[in-house]
Amino acid sequence: MIPIDDSPLTRDGKVLILAYDHGLEHGPVDFEDVPASADPEHVFDVATHDAVTSLAVQKGIAEAYYPSYEDDVDLLAKLNGTSNLWRGEHDSAVNWSVDYAREVGASSVGFTVYGGSNNEIEMVEEFRDAQEAAHRNDMPVVMWSYPRGNGLRNASTPDTIAYAARLGLELGADVAKVKYPGSPDAMEETVRMAGKTKVVMSGGSKRSDEEFLSNVKSVIDAGGAGLAVGRNVFQRENPERLLDALEKVIFEESSVEEALEAAGQTATPEAE
Amino acid sequence: MIPIDDSPLTRDGKVLILAYDHGLEHGPVDFEDVPASADPEHVFDVATHDAVTSLAVQKGIAEAYYPSYEDDVDLLAKLNGTSNLWRGEHDSAVNWSVDYAREVGASSVGFTVYGGSNNEIEMVEEFRDAQEAAHRNDMPVVMWSYPRGNGLRNASTPDTIAYAARLGLELGADVAKVKYPGSPDAMEETVRMAGKTKVVMSGGSKRSDEEFLSNVKSVIDAGGAGLAVGRNVFQRENPERLLDALEKVIFEESSVEEALEAAGQTATPEAE
Amino acid sequence: MIPIDDSPLTRDGKVLILAYDHGLEHGPVDFEDVPASADPEHVFDVATHDAVTSLAVQKGIAEAYYPSYEDDVDLLAKLNGTSNLWRGEHDSAVNWSVDYAREVGASSVGFTVYGGSNNEIEMVEEFRDAQEAAHRNDMPVVMWSYPRGNGLRNASTPDTIAYAARLGLELGADVAKVKYPGSPDAMEETVRMAGKTKVVMSGGSKRSDEEFLSNVKSVIDAGGAGLAVGRNVFQRENPERLLDALEKVIFEESSVEEALEAAGQTATPEAE
Amino acid sequence: MIPIDDSPLTRDGKVLILAYDHGLEHGPVDFEDVPASADPEHVFDVATHDAVTSLAVQKGIAEAYYPSYEDDVDLLAKLNGTSNLWRGEHDSAVNWSVDYAREVGASSVGFTVYGGSNNEIEMVEEFRDAQEAAHRNDMPVVMWSYPRGNGLRNASTPDTIAYAARLGLELGADVAKVKYPGSPDAMEETVRMAGKTKVVMSGGSKRSDEEFLSNVKSVIDAGGAGLAVGRNVFQRENPERLLDALEKVIFEESSVEEALEAAGQTATPEAE
Amino acid sequence: MIPIDDSPLTRDGKVLILAYDHGLEHGPVDFEDVPASADPEHVFDVATHDAVTSLAVQKGIAEAYYPSYEDDVDLLAKLNGTSNLWRGEHDSAVNWSVDYAREVGASSVGFTVYGGSNNEIEMVEEFRDAQEAAHRNDMPVVMWSYPRGNGLRNASTPDTIAYAARLGLELGADVAKVKYPGSPDAMEETVRMAGKTKVVMSGGSKRSDEEFLSNVKSVIDAGGAGLAVGRNVFQRENPERLLDALEKVIFEESSVEEALEAAGQTATPEAE
Repeated sequence: MIPIDDSPLTRDGKVLILAYDHGLEHGPVDFEDVPASADPEHVFDVATHDAVTSLAVQKGIAEAYYPSYEDDVDLLAKLNGTSNLWRGEHDSAVNWSVDYAREVGASSVGFTVYGGSNNEIEMVEEFRDAQEAAHRNDMPVVMWSYPRGNGLRNASTPDTIAYAARLGLELGADVAKVKYPGSPDAMEETVRMAGKTKVVMSGGSKRSDEEFLSNVKSVIDAGGAGLAVGRNVFQRENPERLLDALEKVIFEESSVEEALEAAGQTATPEAE
Repeated sequence: MIPIDDSPLTRDGKVLILAYDHGLEHGPVDFEDVPASADPEHVFDVATHDAVTSLAVQKGIAEAYYPSYEDDVDLLAKLNGTSNLWRGEHDSAVNWSVDYAREVGASSVGFTVYGGSNNEIEMVEEFRDAQEAAHRNDMPVVMWSYPRGNGLRNASTPDTIAYAARLGLELGADVAKVKYPGSPDAMEETVRMAGKTKVVMSGGSKRSDEEFLSNVKSVIDAGGAGLAVGRNVFQRENPERLLDALEKVIFEESSVEEALEAAGQTATPEAE
Repeated sequence: MIPIDDSPLTRDGKVLILAYDHGLEHGPVDFEDVPASADPEHVFDVATHDAVTSLAVQKGIAEAYYPSYEDDVDLLAKLNGTSNLWRGEHDSAVNWSVDYAREVGASSVGFTVYGGSNNEIEMVEEFRDAQEAAHRNDMPVVMWSYPRGNGLRNASTPDTIAYAARLGLELGADVAKVKYPGSPDAMEETVRMAGKTKVVMSGGSKRSDEEFLSNVKSVIDAGGAGLAVGRNVFQRENPERLLDALEKVIFEESSVEEALEAAGQTATPEAE
Repeated sequence: MIPIDDSPLTRDGKVLILAYDHGLEHGPVDFEDVPASADPEHVFDVATHDAVTSLAVQKGIAEAYYPSYEDDVDLLAKLNGTSNLWRGEHDSAVNWSVDYAREVGASSVGFTVYGGSNNEIEMVEEFRDAQEAAHRNDMPVVMWSYPRGNGLRNASTPDTIAYAARLGLELGADVAKVKYPGSPDAMEETVRMAGKTKVVMSGGSKRSDEEFLSNVKSVIDAGGAGLAVGRNVFQRENPERLLDALEKVIFEESSVEEALEAAGQTATPEAE
Repeated sequence: MIPIDDSPLTRDGKVLILAYDHGLEHGPVDFEDVPASADPEHVFDVATHDAVTSLAVQKGIAEAYYPSYEDDVDLLAKLNGTSNLWRGEHDSAVNWSVDYAREVGASSVGFTVYGGSNNEIEMVEEFRDAQEAAHRNDMPVVMWSYPRGNGLRNASTPDTIAYAARLGLELGADVAKVKYPGSPDAMEETVRMAGKTKVVMSGGSKRSDEEFLSNVKSVIDAGGAGLAVGRNVFQRENPERLLDALEKVIFEESSVEEALEAAGQTATPEAE
């Protein structure tokens, strides 16, 4: 047995991953509304907040910017990813090796699996190699588990999302990142299906602080481990305030109201 | 010659594999009727019964749950498997390496081969690598031998099932897991075709205890080595009683009636 | 230069390979007429006859049965082969590695190449790897050279069979196993094209002892090295008598009549 | 973290790559107008000019000609490339390994990625292997980042070119070579998207010295690192004069007029 | 830099390769007119002539026949090649590894590249591996550079042949073997495009001694390094006389008339 300590990825068993691979997956268009977010230094600065358990980036970003943040940020190497210039069946290129990620300073790895894609089998076998190499290096593994592709009829039903979380457990992920399945009950079922694999919600569409925190709160209440979030945090005018509030909700079991209050915010919608 | 001791997989030459890869192959839907069965701990507990010679699971389940059961359960690493989100020609991703399986504590391995699939040749070559690595690590090999795919006209005829068993022998499996071919005579022929490779029946559709045990009994009488079973056991209200009875039939040559009696059961159908 | 001693495969430069891979290539149907032939022990027993220079089997058969026959039988590892459940373009899975074959005790290897198949190039490159590994282990190589596939118009013309034999020479086989090209002249031409590569005839369709021996005799007279035969021998009622006769024809330059007489047989047709 | 010193590729942080792979990518037709340019020695001689930070060639050219220029030219190994005889979806063969490039004397490597091609994922994974091997050998990496292929609607819009530059950053290139996006503003945005990855403009269509230098000047003014250029330099009647001027513009922050004057040229168009 | 000494392949910088892979590429039909040419010993005997700088054969021929000729013949391992039974898009199987070729005694290697084939990229990458392995073993490399395939409109124009020669230079061949481009001028241009890569003409269609020698002479006069020839030599009634004459033309700068005279021949056409 290979025992894995997921502490590089968690705090008190909870998780707040700041994800920043938009430049690869979507390109500059994702930075248009908040131009400063195109600069990795901006996001690394945000990631130094205590609430963030790790920052997920691609290899090039890590190599160029992580050296200045090694003491303040835990690096999650997002191992695969693909530009949206490519229009084939859902797939994801493996952009760095686990060994290289370790050398660059990553303490955990992330990997996208598109269950239901015609490329599912190839992706799952690439995940196998990455997962085994990561565990042998004592690096916990996060699966971005997103059913998607030609063979799939309903990618966002609670059943499919629960299945996605279960894939994380069956295939050896320490954490499964899934879409929010639509209701607290469905989230609870998703968490139950994942067994000892922790479940985190992906950030989802943009909404007001209050709505967003309520959503995160319901994940925590359903037994989820936390959140992986991108633009919903680093493209806010004041990401620190939202992170203060998220810290309360995720790590301190606060209510949304307590969290907003502590963060000095009133519950007003913020357009993004 | 590489001598293999199949004792990690057998007791007195007989086999009762508890298979638990439904969460990968079918997803949460398989656990709906008996929600507790979604929890691997429930199934590991069932697998501690003396009648169970080994428990077959995928890598993630093994890594997360096996450490607590190392002393009480023999681990069979089911090396490949695929979600049913994927709708291509029959195939199965290789989800862990043999070396990794050994490190996690597995004492034997299992591998699905879909004879007749357009992917048969690739699957058989993956089986080759797994089989040779397993035997070099003194781990016996179980082939889930399921003819299936575009090129196949009759996947469940006695001839095809006998061929499936023979594939196990020719390609180097120590045990071939096949569907029940429909009659005691056909089972005997299947066993004969497998030569020194042991044949076990897969659990098949749900039926009453008595019908199920009679079926297993006819496998044993035909020279079969036993059974690989999943929901038919771990989704029973009282799996221990059925395992008591199976132990009698498989390992002690009891009649079905003796077995049911010893297990304190009357022969009443049980709906599942 | 890597000098290869083909003595593990030959006696006095002649060859009589007993081939037993029908269980993989055709399945149980091939054993229906003579049920005992499904049992590898029956065939291993036949192979102990002095006339047999080696027995060709797949990996699983070798692992399970060869240990009892190591002193009496020379093992030829038939490295590739495919079930007929698979209905794609002609191809053949590589079922064991040369290293593994050596560990199991094989003293030579065999490999099918379907010239003219859409998979010819892949098969030839797999042959390359096997051939080089075998020669580095001092194991001679037999090519089952069978032109077959979509691109081929006339698989059984003398020209194509002579080409098949030449492929054996060009690609590095020590022995090429080909179909009988239809006449002594064509056989002589085939042998001439193979140069220093020995040519053996594959058993072909079933016929009377006399016809069969005459056919073998004409191969020897044409300069061929002998025979690779399966059911024509091990499914006879008395395989030993036919082997006695084959020994005379192949190794002792006897006439068919002398051979039959020495084997105590009259030249009566035997239905198979 | 693997720190890379890009000094083999830059001078004062600026870049002037002379690219000479036309013989592979386009064939002899590219040399028709200036026949002398077919001779690699001519181009190596041009590359000895102080303004040139490195010369990019394919393996064969490097092996045959670089030994005479090791002291005077920095070699950039262009690792992939394909003839235009091939008419499939955009792709590029990997023509030498990084280890071999290092042995031949290269101090940096270059690699084409066609984002949007059906082969994008394969190319990006080949880039990964090359990038990691290069960095482990302390060789900086230039990505020829050219969106191109079936899936791509607008390969030359400012957005696509900015995305191309961002791919360089995300995937780990030290320098991204892109087309000029059409305006100083667009160039500035492209440079901004590339973060710490340096951006160089590819030579583009032929034009007068003045137009060409103005274009380069606007790249420098927009924060770009310089230029990768081929025929626009080595097919000039007097490449040295243009290189003198480029040196002024790129490395000495001169105006176009100053540069032309220093190089002894008047701003007259030159047809190519 | 890896310095390669091409002396195993050349004499005074000139080349006369005797090529004998017809048995693989075309089969027995190529030997019909001159049956003795089917016997490799006949061709090895011809190759002992001083004019022949090396003999190109496939692996099996080399293994079986080269041991008797090691002192008298330089072996060129033709690494790839394919039977014409196969009718897919132009491609060529890699039939031996460079290491194996070295062990068999080869002092140089040859490799076919079909520029313009749908398989061009794969072939070029296989060439890369072979070229680097060969140079690391101090073995010069000959590229059979034959544009051919679906994507190609004009395989035999002077432009395409000049491009083929340039591919040899760009990709790292020491010698490029191309078709004769039709005229002395075109040959000169082809040689110029190949730079330091030597160009040899492939034998081409059968013609009279005088025509053939004139053709070779024009190659030499155009700066070509010589000839790779097969049936035009070894299927002559008196190959030694033609080789005497070729020696004069290629290595001694004789005129065709001097060469024919020295070889004791008058300029009479010879039908082949």
